[in-house]
Amino acid sequence: MRIAVDAMGGDKGPHSAVAGAASAMVEDPSLEIQLFGPVRTLEDEISRLPRPLAAAASRLDLRDAPQVISQDMRASQALRHGQASSMARMLECVASGDAQVGVSSGNTGALMALSRRALGTVAGVPRPAISTAIPTRNEGRCYLLDLGANVDVSGDRLIDFALMGDIMARHVDGIAAPRIALLNVGVESTKGAASVLKADAELRRISGLNYQGFIEGDGIFAGEVDVVVCDGFVGNAVLKASEGLARMLVQRVQATFEAHWGSRLVGLLARPALKRLKSELDPVRYNGASLLGLAGIVIKSHGSCDAAGFHYALKRAVQEVRRDLPSRLEAELVNRRPLPPSSEEGGSSHGRAVVR
Amino acid sequence: MRIAVDAMGGDKGPHSAVAGAASAMVEDPSLEIQLFGPVRTLEDEISRLPRPLAAAASRLDLRDAPQVISQDMRASQALRHGQASSMARMLECVASGDAQVGVSSGNTGALMALSRRALGTVAGVPRPAISTAIPTRNEGRCYLLDLGANVDVSGDRLIDFALMGDIMARHVDGIAAPRIALLNVGVESTKGAASVLKADAELRRISGLNYQGFIEGDGIFAGEVDVVVCDGFVGNAVLKASEGLARMLVQRVQATFEAHWGSRLVGLLARPALKRLKSELDPVRYNGASLLGLAGIVIKSHGSCDAAGFHYALKRAVQEVRRDLPSRLEAELVNRRPLPPSSEEGGSSHGRAVVR
Repeated sequence: MRIAVDAMGGDKGPHSAVAGAASAMVEDPSLEIQLFGPVRTLEDEISRLPRPLAAAASRLDLRDAPQVISQDMRASQALRHGQASSMARMLECVASGDAQVGVSSGNTGALMALSRRALGTVAGVPRPAISTAIPTRNEGRCYLLDLGANVDVSGDRLIDFALMGDIMARHVDGIAAPRIALLNVGVESTKGAASVLKADAELRRISGLNYQGFIEGDGIFAGEVDVVVCDGFVGNAVLKASEGLARMLVQRVQATFEAHWGSRLVGLLARPALKRLKSELDPVRYNGASLLGLAGIVIKSHGSCDAAGFHYALKRAVQEVRRDLPSRLEAELVNRRPLPPSSEEGGSSHGRAVVR
Repeated sequence: MRIAVDAMGGDKGPHSAVAGAASAMVEDPSLEIQLFGPVRTLEDEISRLPRPLAAAASRLDLRDAPQVISQDMRASQALRHGQASSMARMLECVASGDAQVGVSSGNTGALMALSRRALGTVAGVPRPAISTAIPTRNEGRCYLLDLGANVDVSGDRLIDFALMGDIMARHVDGIAAPRIALLNVGVESTKGAASVLKADAELRRISGLNYQGFIEGDGIFAGEVDVVVCDGFVGNAVLKASEGLARMLVQRVQATFEAHWGSRLVGLLARPALKRLKSELDPVRYNGASLLGLAGIVIKSHGSCDAAGFHYALKRAVQEVRRDLPSRLEAELVNRRPLPPSSEEGGSSHGRAVVR
C-alpha cells in the first residue's frame, strides 16, 4: 500500500502530517508513505520527532516540492500557478499510479480543483462531492455530503450525492442497505428549496435505494440514517457550526468542573471521566473527508488536526483503497442515475467536468 | 401590558403555555394574559397547576377557540381553514390592538402565514424573517436569521435580514453598534452562493452598519459577531443541527458520569455541577424567536419547551413591546435599504407581501 501525503497543508505547519505518517508506519509497517514538501523542512520536522516515531520516519520517502498552497489561495490560482506545490506533486503521484491514494490537510477548494484536473471523475460525475462521517447517538456515525465543494446545485447533483453516499457506505463501511435522507426545512414533501423537492421526487423512484425522505437538521445526530445529503453551502455551514458548538460545549464542561470542584480529591476522581468525554466529543474523531466522484482516491484531513487526527485520516485512506471505491462508483453510478448529467451544468463556472 | 397567548401550539399540549403564563404573572403581577384554546381544555390544565401558580392562573383571561392548528398542517391550509383556531384568534387580538403582542409555540409556517395576513408587514418588507438568539462563548449571545421562513432568497432579502437584525439588536438588546456578518462557506469575498456575494457587496456600501463581512459556521458560536445572516434553509438546518448536537452531548456527559462514577459520594458531589451544566447547554435557554418585519409583535416559542421556556418567551415578548420594535423597523428600514424590494419577488409563490 503506497500513500502520497501532502505534508504542507496543516494550519500549524507539517508537524501533524509528519508525525501522523510516522505513527501510521509504526502501526502498520507494510505501509509505504511518500511525503511531499520542501525536503529541508521535512527533514527538520523528522529530526524533532520522539524516538519511536523517528525510527519509522526514517523509512518515509521524502519528495521535494518547493511550493506551498496557502489556505487562502483561490482554486483558480492554484490551478494556474500551483504546479510545483506539495499538493499538486502529491496528486501527480496518485494520477501516475505511483501511489494508490493521496492525503492532504490543505486548502479544500484547491485540493478539489487540482484533484479533478489530475485524476478526472468517474461515470461522468460533473461535480465531485466532499463527505465526512460525524458521530451520532448510540455510538453511531452518519455521512454528511456535500461539505462545500458545490454551492447552488441542482436537484440532479443532489441525486448524484445520494447515490455516491450510498455506494460509499455499502462498500467502505459494509452497511447492507444504508438509510439515505435529504436535508430539508421540514419533513413534509411540500416544503423546501426547489432543488431539494426535485431530488426527493426522483430519489423515490430509484429502485434498490433505501431512501428515507426528508430529515431536519437535528436528525443528522439522531442515528436514524446513515447518509444525509445536502447542497455544499448547507453542509459546510452545518459541519462548521457543529464543530464550533462542540468546542464551546467542551470548554464549558471543563469550566464548570474547574469552577465548582475545588478539592483535589474530586479533581482527581473527575479527571479520567473528563478525559474520556473530551475524546468522545472530539470533532476530529472521524477525521478524513472523502472526495467522492474522482477517478482516484483523495482524502482531505482537517487543517487543524493533530498527529492522531492525521493518522486517522491515513486509516480512512487505506480503507478506501482496500474497497476500491472509484471502481465501485464507476460501475454502479451509471446504471442507477435516473438521468445523465446535463453537459451544460458540467461546464459551469464552478469548474469543468474532467472525465479521464 | 397585554399579551395574547396561543395555548395549543406545544408539542405536548397546553401545559407549558398555561404554566408558563401563570409563572410570568406570578413574577410580574401587572401582566394581563389572554389565553386562547378550547376553554374546557384550558380550565382542566389550570386545575392541575400547583397552588402558587393556580392563584395567578385564576387571573388568566380565557378566550375560547375550538380549533387547533397541528404541527403538520400546511400554511395554505391554515390560511384557508384555520379561522377558528387558537392561533388565528390570538393574532386577531393582536391585530385589533386588544393585545400588544402574541406568543405561540405552534406550527412555524402557519404562524408566519397567519401573522402576515393578520398584521401585514412594515416598510414594504416582502419577506418577514424568523430570528432567535443562541448562546456563544464568553456567556454572550448571537442572533441568527432567517430560520426557515424563506428559502431560495435573493441578495436583496439577505440585506433586509441584516438591517432588521441590526435594528433589533440595537433597540431590543441595547447593543450600540451590533457586529453583523453574512454566513458563507469561506471568508474570502470570491467564494459562495451568488445571492450571498451580491448581498455582501451591497452591505459594504451601507453607511452606519457595522458590517463585518463573511463568517463561517463555527463563527456563530465564537462570540465575535452579534447578528449572523443567512437564507432560511441554511439557518434552519444550522439551528436544528445545533439543537440535536447539544442534546446528544448532554446525554453523553450524563452517561459518562453515570458509567464511571459509581460511588455515592462522587455522585452527590457531581450533581450540582451537572445540573448547572445542563442548564447552560439547554438549547431553549434563549427561547422565543422573533418574527421580524411584521407590523405587530409575534414571538414563536419552541414547540418542545417546558413552562420555564415558555416563561422566557413571554419575557422576550414584553421586551419587544417595551422597545416598540415594529415602529423602529418602519422608521429605519426604508432609509437604509440600498434598493426598494422588487414587487415581483414579493408576489412569489412563497407568499404575498401584505403591507398593512
